Amino acid sequence: MKTYIGVDLGGTLVRVAKVSASGEILYESKSDSLAQKGPEIVLDNIIKMIKNIPDYKECVGVGLGIPGPVDTVKGIITLATNLKDFTNFPVAKYLEDALGLRVFLDNDANVAGLAEATLGAGKDLPSVYYITQSTGIGGAFVVDGRVISGRTGYAGEVANIVVCESSEKINHLNLGAVENEASGTALVRRAKELVDPEISDAREIFELAREGNEKALFLVDDMARKFALMMANVAHVVDPHIFVLGGGITKAHDMYLDLVREYFKGYVHKGMRGIKIELAQLKEPGIIGAAMLPLSYGL
Amino acid sequence: MKTYIGVDLGGTLVRVAKVSASGEILYESKSDSLAQKGPEIVLDNIIKMIKNIPDYKECVGVGLGIPGPVDTVKGIITLATNLKDFTNFPVAKYLEDALGLRVFLDNDANVAGLAEATLGAGKDLPSVYYITQSTGIGGAFVVDGRVISGRTGYAGEVANIVVCESSEKINHLNLGAVENEASGTALVRRAKELVDPEISDAREIFELAREGNEKALFLVDDMARKFALMMANVAHVVDPHIFVLGGGITKAHDMYLDLVREYFKGYVHKGMRGIKIELAQLKEPGIIGAAMLPLSYGL
Repeated sequence: MKTYIGVDLGGTLVRVAKVSASGEILYESKSDSLAQKGPEIVLDNIIKMIKNIPDYKECVGVGLGIPGPVDTVKGIITLATNLKDFTNFPVAKYLEDALGLRVFLDNDANVAGLAEATLGAGKDLPSVYYITQSTGIGGAFVVDGRVISGRTGYAGEVANIVVCESSEKINHLNLGAVENEASGTALVRRAKELVDPEISDAREIFELAREGNEKALFLVDDMARKFALMMANVAHVVDPHIFVLGGGITKAHDMYLDLVREYFKGYVHKGMRGIKIELAQLKEPGIIGAAMLPLSYGL
Repeated sequence: MKTYIGVDLGGTLVRVAKVSASGEILYESKSDSLAQKGPEIVLDNIIKMIKNIPDYKECVGVGLGIPGPVDTVKGIITLATNLKDFTNFPVAKYLEDALGLRVFLDNDANVAGLAEATLGAGKDLPSVYYITQSTGIGGAFVVDGRVISGRTGYAGEVANIVVCESSEKINHLNLGAVENEASGTALVRRAKELVDPEISDAREIFELAREGNEKALFLVDDMARKFALMMANVAHVVDPHIFVLGGGITKAHDMYLDLVREYFKGYVHKGMRGIKIELAQLKEPGIIGAAMLPLSYGL
């Protein structure tokens, strides 16, 4: 069976793995990502880690998952916020020259979506829209096993979709953007105002809701409704076969998932109510999805 | 050069054409579509029209553009509102059996988008989001020369995307859906309330705006802003290389297009401001796009 190298590069850690075409992790290592030391030092460290994989040259290709939008054709990061001086650095070319292997990159939500589409909840379905909901919100659109990353890698940046009228400017996102209304961060912000200023974690709010706290129940309901409206907007654009939901908030799916499904049905045409909404299945979508990138390009 | 047969089937008329791979119409005929007589009579009429095309058997395949969402895999219309008893009728199979040619169908916005992506304003670009704005609003997403029509043909049904909070239930669409806020029909409805109850056509409102009428200017500005917000929502889902705008409203592009472009830039991330927004170029996108369907499937 063919094997691939996956690299999950974050602001803190970098993980490197050898993965089989069926998604089995055959070898894995991790290290400090050295993210503030500049691209040469970060990539030289990754090259060393890859060269430590036994028989790494027998792998078919390398895939990298990276925080931020990526120009997949040029193999560059178009906006690196957590990786110093990476914006527009020729990441794919630098690694290819050093390793003699084809290298592909895409952003971390896209590779997680690719993993779920290829091996997880979206397996065998022609089109999958993956959405991760934790401190932030991100997405990925996968058609026939290939990420649609768009003109400059902004496909799936669903965080900025507007779901309500709001006059409160919170950050660089649109007024009423879903990430400021229905992310974990937004839930905590709203709960501090409405329930208890001491709340610091979304889990506490779900716990209060489970205990029947009216205000917490309202906040969870309102989050589910706004998240579902964002999903409905996505569905009217691409009509995916399934939405796969990942990220930390899905840990509270008992309080939340059925609400999202109900609100979604109310926001779409009758013929779209059969779109599946399921939880992500894979434990390691980041590293496995990165390894699936070369496969998705036909390698 | 290969030739294709395109069929543009509407509630009133049906048009049949033989089209070259470069988009030249080589032969054309039209007739009453007989839309209320049921699928056999409608399709038998189309079969007769196709058989009247000289050397029709030398064409590579047939494409149909149809109002309403289409299941392109099964070759059926999933929701026919203007064509009596067409919902779930095996359109593609019926025509294939009679003609001995491969038959593909898709909805009219999708085939118009395909034409613009293949031969019009989106030519040579990897991904195109086409949006038509006239009495209603429709869209189509074309990637690498192929329409992404979705699970049951609802991709591109952008009319139902929510762009504002509204408590006015107008039709089956969502409260605040863009079609009820920024279509030609919506513009007339709002102008009747705000400007003059005698207004009956969007052209009159643009004319008043050109003359400096403050209320008409406000309505045009508000329509452009809401349309641009819908486009921004689309862009965050798929990040297309270009938006191609068609439909009757674009005839007033002098009053309108630059406003849409400016509002769009304000609603997207900086890296997305380079997404092109251009007018459709083809005079006959419906019939040419229908003929391009077989080509888009590799024929």
